[in-house]
Amino acid sequence: MDKRVITISREFGSGGRTIARKVATGLGYRYYDKELVEQVALETGFDPQYVEERGEEAPGNSSLSYSFMPPGVPGVMQGMSAADFLWSMQRSVILSLADKEPCVIVGRCADFILRDRADSLHIFIHADDAFRAKRIVSLYGESETSPEKRLQEKDRKRMLNYRHYTHREWGMCQNYHLSLRSDVIGIDRCADLIVSLAKDV
Amino acid sequence: MDKRVITISREFGSGGRTIARKVATGLGYRYYDKELVEQVALETGFDPQYVEERGEEAPGNSSLSYSFMPPGVPGVMQGMSAADFLWSMQRSVILSLADKEPCVIVGRCADFILRDRADSLHIFIHADDAFRAKRIVSLYGESETSPEKRLQEKDRKRMLNYRHYTHREWGMCQNYHLSLRSDVIGIDRCADLIVSLAKDV
Repeated sequence: MDKRVITISREFGSGGRTIARKVATGLGYRYYDKELVEQVALETGFDPQYVEERGEEAPGNSSLSYSFMPPGVPGVMQGMSAADFLWSMQRSVILSLADKEPCVIVGRCADFILRDRADSLHIFIHADDAFRAKRIVSLYGESETSPEKRLQEKDRKRMLNYRHYTHREWGMCQNYHLSLRSDVIGIDRCADLIVSLAKDV
Repeated sequence: MDKRVITISREFGSGGRTIARKVATGLGYRYYDKELVEQVALETGFDPQYVEERGEEAPGNSSLSYSFMPPGVPGVMQGMSAADFLWSMQRSVILSLADKEPCVIVGRCADFILRDRADSLHIFIHADDAFRAKRIVSLYGESETSPEKRLQEKDRKRMLNYRHYTHREWGMCQNYHLSLRSDVIGIDRCADLIVSLAKDV
């Protein structure tokens, strides 16, 4: 059976997003990343940048409480924290995108949210720290924080977010159908492998 | 670069051993499983069955203490528990087998022991519980304990053994170059995939 929905979870700097884009091109599927963020922003009333930054963070990192939400946010969510509200809306956008058409979705606990779909393939991409450090500097530039520290902080946020909302451990093989170490296997080879599995497993 | 050493870690009943045998045949490599056990038995003086059963268990499960070891066990290990002694000998056998010739090694923390070899490829095989339960009953027969309980106990022992000796979490993607869910991807397809990666990554 063809896999209609591919979710790609990834360590920061591992090339997961690049692989996801190549997989979407290879399969002729929609690639959901910015567009997912925009749709969540639209449905929540949050700023897209807030959704982008906070959508994969642990709730404890969210300093906004619901009472400070922008006007127009549906009243049914009253009493929820901003983080829980964002999670809930993100979840329903992901479920509806996956229903709509064949697609590749990056991050945001999509592997967990879509775990019961038999037509989905869940992937985790990771890589050696040195490879990732070099990659984030070349992609996003230097910053005051060392690349190693930036990797650590970002991965930690994703891990805490995942644990909080899924009660599973981020990066455990058992959550995914396939995990790949991109610096050893190569970014293109990872993408080719996923495309070929999506077509006939 | 060709990968000369393939380690296969696996959930109980996932088909990891079958995949390992197919990979060894496909690559023309030696397959180390029983032979590893026999060599460890020879070097420790332990009974092969004891090595087979206890070599992947947590130290707490070992009721033997070193003072009850069979005669002929080297005196340098005095003061070590039987479990630690077994681990230490198993480790040195694995290191020396990997040096000797291209091979496939199943379980026994070989991924950790050989983690610094650039010519090694570390794999984790896992599968859905229902698939594994069916498989262990067809391979090893029924027992008084339910298949689900047998899976849980065996995986728990491997997890505790791995955690104790490697200070890493068993089944984390980051420990391996590749992890595969065998019930979805298929046992033959998993083997083919590993053979092809071993040849040219």
